[in-house]
Amino acid sequence: MAMGLYIGVDVGGTKVLAAEVSEAGVVRRTARRSTPGRRVDAALVETALTEAVLEVADGRTIDGVGLAAAGFVDAAGERVAFAPHLPWRGEDVRGRLAARWGTLVALDNDANCAAVAECHHGAARVARNILMVTMGTGIGGALVIDRVVHRGTHGMAGEFGHMKVVPDGQPCECGGRGCWEQYSSGNALVRFARARIGQDPTVLEELCDGNPSQLTGPMVTEAAEDGDLVARQAFASVGDWLGVGLANLVAAFDPELIVVGGGVSAAGDRLLEPARTALTRSLVGTGYREIPEVVRAAFGPAAGVVGAAELVRSQARR
Amino acid sequence: MAMGLYIGVDVGGTKVLAAEVSEAGVVRRTARRSTPGRRVDAALVETALTEAVLEVADGRTIDGVGLAAAGFVDAAGERVAFAPHLPWRGEDVRGRLAARWGTLVALDNDANCAAVAECHHGAARVARNILMVTMGTGIGGALVIDRVVHRGTHGMAGEFGHMKVVPDGQPCECGGRGCWEQYSSGNALVRFARARIGQDPTVLEELCDGNPSQLTGPMVTEAAEDGDLVARQAFASVGDWLGVGLANLVAAFDPELIVVGGGVSAAGDRLLEPARTALTRSLVGTGYREIPEVVRAAFGPAAGVVGAAELVRSQARR
Repeated sequence: MAMGLYIGVDVGGTKVLAAEVSEAGVVRRTARRSTPGRRVDAALVETALTEAVLEVADGRTIDGVGLAAAGFVDAAGERVAFAPHLPWRGEDVRGRLAARWGTLVALDNDANCAAVAECHHGAARVARNILMVTMGTGIGGALVIDRVVHRGTHGMAGEFGHMKVVPDGQPCECGGRGCWEQYSSGNALVRFARARIGQDPTVLEELCDGNPSQLTGPMVTEAAEDGDLVARQAFASVGDWLGVGLANLVAAFDPELIVVGGGVSAAGDRLLEPARTALTRSLVGTGYREIPEVVRAAFGPAAGVVGAAELVRSQARR
Repeated sequence: MAMGLYIGVDVGGTKVLAAEVSEAGVVRRTARRSTPGRRVDAALVETALTEAVLEVADGRTIDGVGLAAAGFVDAAGERVAFAPHLPWRGEDVRGRLAARWGTLVALDNDANCAAVAECHHGAARVARNILMVTMGTGIGGALVIDRVVHRGTHGMAGEFGHMKVVPDGQPCECGGRGCWEQYSSGNALVRFARARIGQDPTVLEELCDGNPSQLTGPMVTEAAEDGDLVARQAFASVGDWLGVGLANLVAAFDPELIVVGGGVSAAGDRLLEPARTALTRSLVGTGYREIPEVVRAAFGPAAGVVGAAELVRSQARR
């Protein structure tokens, strides 16, 4: 039953976070484990998952577990087709863990789970057609149509970060060039700042002890808060590119609302204001249409567990 | 009833084509009128439409009329919000013509109607998730999800042609720069050829009587058929850009099938082969996914009337 014990698990490249999530989307008891990486046997990851889930359950009967995986999940929600930082390569993760745990298990990728969390308990509670963009190291995303995540024919919809926005542009980890996430993401923020660090003594320079290779996205966010000019320029650039890419997606989907999540969105309007300006500038037909609102996601790092728990809870309701 | 007389009408910037369309999607009797342009009273366009519809009906009772309009149609399918070549500016076209004709009237934009035609009677009869791209003067399109056209929150989804693919690129009629349709469309084909005409005596030069300003898209298609090198290069370039833009849309939507229609698609594989190559090269994760097939639309200039007739027929069935 829907009021029971539902656990969401965020399976990332370095750690597992499991959480009991209430029907209202509130995170209760949590447990963490580190994930052993992609070069190990899948069984080791599944053992780490099991430990975290059992710790949260603490002897109670589990009504369902939702898994948010950092990777491609197939259209049926059964298999992790590929995950750059995890050992799964097409295994039936959902069925295997459901058998192991003796409970209902649901599986989707982390960006889709974040979109579910925002739709049910976050920034998109009343909207029907939502564009969700998650800005972390790269850009992930989800397209929600009539409050259902559009997963695509093979479960691979929402890979917005690899839309090409600059011909022969910056090389990308995907093997391509000029991908959107090379200009608008945590990595883009750090690259922008690194290239300009040391021009003047800055807060940024202090934060990374004068060593640009130590610079991280959260340092750029902190330096921007402290008034650092380079850090603020980095957000202006990444925010502008965010809006340019969003304009492409709005031209294609015509969503009602845009929700921006992921670690970089912690910067709030410092990221979203230049994005709104660029969206308005770049979108076709702005004189004849409403421009969708761009809002920050309600959930930060808990988006995956909250969405995954909601996913399995809604399956249990059926 | 669905077996009755259903008429599809394609309302373009220069002409109206009305056609009786059978349940199997076959065009029977047709009638044409010229449209008086966007600077006239909307009543004149509606009179031209009425004449064409009545000519096709030829005294028989009309069971429904579907309108495919070259413009933005609102989410409810009631109003033409804006059409660059027609005088409608937000009028309730559907309701007004339904009252005038005393029959069921359905309205959508021409690219959405073309997608309906391909889904029901054309190249997309068995697919569920389809990306339709229409290449004429510019690029139009439609996104079909579970065999339903996704019209968007304001009816403006599918404006693929104005996705920005080149920063500060070629100026576009929309007021923006670097729009996809500046690189992949009938206009792009002509611009490419014009810039290179006269370098050597070519078939193209003959076709336009040595006057590049007289060059048209169909001339480029014809010259390419006749082996003209510049014309073939023009298709290679436009086809390559087609594939680059399709890769962006596939990353976002993960469709099962891509259907390319519109006038430029008459060139068939001369356009589609370079597009398939560029799609495979540009798409993210090609090692871990199926690449959707890219096929030519089954309908040429009749796509609008066939789709519009199907649209109203399916409403009558409900």
